[in-house]
Amino acid sequence: MNPGTPQGITVPAGFRASGVTAGLKASGGSDVALVVNDGPSKQAAAVFTSNRVAAAPVHWSRQVVSDGRVDAVILNSGGANACTGAQGFGNTHTTAEKTAEALGISATDVFVCSTGLIGEQLPMEKLLPGVNAAVAGLDDDGGTAAAEAIRTTDSVRKESVAVEDGYTIGGMAKGAGMLAPGLATMLVVLTTDADLSGPDLDDALRNATRVTFDRTDADGCMSTNDTVVLMASGASTVKPDKAQFTRALTGLCQDLAQQLITDAEGASHDIAITTVNAASEDDAETVGRAVARSNLFKTAIFGQDPNWGRVLSAVGTTDAAFEPDELNVSINSVQICRNGGIGDSRDLVDLSGRKVTVEIDLKAGNESATIWTNDLTHEYVHENSAYSS
Amino acid sequence: MNPGTPQGITVPAGFRASGVTAGLKASGGSDVALVVNDGPSKQAAAVFTSNRVAAAPVHWSRQVVSDGRVDAVILNSGGANACTGAQGFGNTHTTAEKTAEALGISATDVFVCSTGLIGEQLPMEKLLPGVNAAVAGLDDDGGTAAAEAIRTTDSVRKESVAVEDGYTIGGMAKGAGMLAPGLATMLVVLTTDADLSGPDLDDALRNATRVTFDRTDADGCMSTNDTVVLMASGASTVKPDKAQFTRALTGLCQDLAQQLITDAEGASHDIAITTVNAASEDDAETVGRAVARSNLFKTAIFGQDPNWGRVLSAVGTTDAAFEPDELNVSINSVQICRNGGIGDSRDLVDLSGRKVTVEIDLKAGNESATIWTNDLTHEYVHENSAYSS
Repeated sequence: MNPGTPQGITVPAGFRASGVTAGLKASGGSDVALVVNDGPSKQAAAVFTSNRVAAAPVHWSRQVVSDGRVDAVILNSGGANACTGAQGFGNTHTTAEKTAEALGISATDVFVCSTGLIGEQLPMEKLLPGVNAAVAGLDDDGGTAAAEAIRTTDSVRKESVAVEDGYTIGGMAKGAGMLAPGLATMLVVLTTDADLSGPDLDDALRNATRVTFDRTDADGCMSTNDTVVLMASGASTVKPDKAQFTRALTGLCQDLAQQLITDAEGASHDIAITTVNAASEDDAETVGRAVARSNLFKTAIFGQDPNWGRVLSAVGTTDAAFEPDELNVSINSVQICRNGGIGDSRDLVDLSGRKVTVEIDLKAGNESATIWTNDLTHEYVHENSAYSS
Repeated sequence: MNPGTPQGITVPAGFRASGVTAGLKASGGSDVALVVNDGPSKQAAAVFTSNRVAAAPVHWSRQVVSDGRVDAVILNSGGANACTGAQGFGNTHTTAEKTAEALGISATDVFVCSTGLIGEQLPMEKLLPGVNAAVAGLDDDGGTAAAEAIRTTDSVRKESVAVEDGYTIGGMAKGAGMLAPGLATMLVVLTTDADLSGPDLDDALRNATRVTFDRTDADGCMSTNDTVVLMASGASTVKPDKAQFTRALTGLCQDLAQQLITDAEGASHDIAITTVNAASEDDAETVGRAVARSNLFKTAIFGQDPNWGRVLSAVGTTDAAFEPDELNVSINSVQICRNGGIGDSRDLVDLSGRKVTVEIDLKAGNESATIWTNDLTHEYVHENSAYSS
């Protein structure tokens, strides 16, 4: 895997992509992306937001992928098409139909993703010409143009490639880290020229996202539109071992997830919270999330304050197995809390850098998990209070 | 109940109180408070933080109140005595012993509360002389001095009195609203001259706090020290009907809870989130809390942005009974979301005032609940990042 590779989704054989400007975004940037799987295989899998208030494209795309086949993904920024009722669903349907017509495929094989403001109808008079332009612009090297077109508040485009033994995986993502998940729905498109069945892709994707995207946690605000879709063309003719493919896919997802965290504009720290010696992986994850969601902890890190009391307070709200007077907490490798009480001097902790590691030792077992988040800053408040007004 | 009454806990007959300066606080303000129940009855009840990382005084006081009797409450600001290990527990014990000795009572009837920074030992050489001074300063009108001494970041002291038929209830509280619960542990002392048993007081207190203090919700950050204690002297000789007493106590707790919310310095809006037509009260509370804990929603309100999409996103993360396409949301009485989609114009919503009401209609039953919170502001980030460094 090479994060510096300039392309993503069109590196695997069998894919074309494009990114064009339909005029949906006030910024005037490109805003419609298209990814087409030319096969020979067109197997696919996807995971979606668990938010019950899901956007129209999520409802549509769940159906599209339910048979394990996706021929094309059409994506737009500049409008989430969420909370838009029957008209919104109709607009997603129309977008898929238009894409299918231009490509000569079935609309039921066209996956749709949208991102932008909730509660507004998409301007179809702009979007539909954009769909035609995207089809006309399809290119074997179009991955980067597509990655550009799905940006919203992202300061940079996010792509990744994993070159494995005889096959490759490519990916693109959008979402400005954990700073503003509400305006930065996470959309991820993954491609591979490996030859894998839909069920195998589904297994691999769920295993990969569970320990990567699902563990980047801001404020527990789940978007209405979050979507990760994986398509396989089979063009390499290589049928990889499923475990090996899952490891490669997980590495690529982790690279993209780190790009999301790092691009949290306004955030001043990237925080990795690792819970060790937990009785179960669930416990480790629960404890990490509780700390990651503590505004008090997140503002302390912004203030370069190694306030371990706020870590313990957050841990204490969980039902994980531990004894309060046995907890150890290290921040940037300094064990400032030992056995639930005062440990090494807090003056030893240097929080001037961007990377922060927190390690919580539950002394209750052998499982561990890492949750990634950012600090809570003035910029977070500014960006999220100024968005739609 | 009259929120403007200048006194609180010493209005009911049978109580003396004091507030003195021991030198625990950098500000130099008073920092030790004492409340003594002179009887004839000395029945009591208390509720404590559910945080498993509880401070030494919480562990001590749980034991003190377990027999339904409390003779005195000694409180200090300037140090939470949390995460302080065996030495910290010893310091709480010593504080109770010293108080008991000066009052000529048993240490096992002395309830202890502390508030301030976590993870530092109390300066006992200052605190213990303060205890003696507090005993010496006890006064029939000492309630206000006590309410002053428990302030930390509170910009005003918080007292309340309820005058009922033949008896009264008094209260004092500290905690700067939901702005900074970590540095503003909620401590509440309630007194009454009604004649009620420990178990009846316990019932009444749990019912009252469940719908008042427990429903003021900031960021889910529970303090290690939160405590509410209720003492009855029986000095009025009136034995009120338990239901009537519970109603009166609930009203007084609600008044104090509103004072906490209103004193969230830096917060620019007080937000009441009412969920109606829920299938159960639990559902209504769960939905309200999910919205109250959404940083995206809270920053939107700070920005005077009636962003109902963020309300729906938060509701969608819960397991409450509802259909996404049936949800109605009103902000300040304007129904801007109807049937899960676009309702009346957002331009009709005026968020320039401090009070904000959000009503979420689940259309799933007949139950309702209100959660109170504040917005998320630059001041929140500032206060909480600058506290301990």
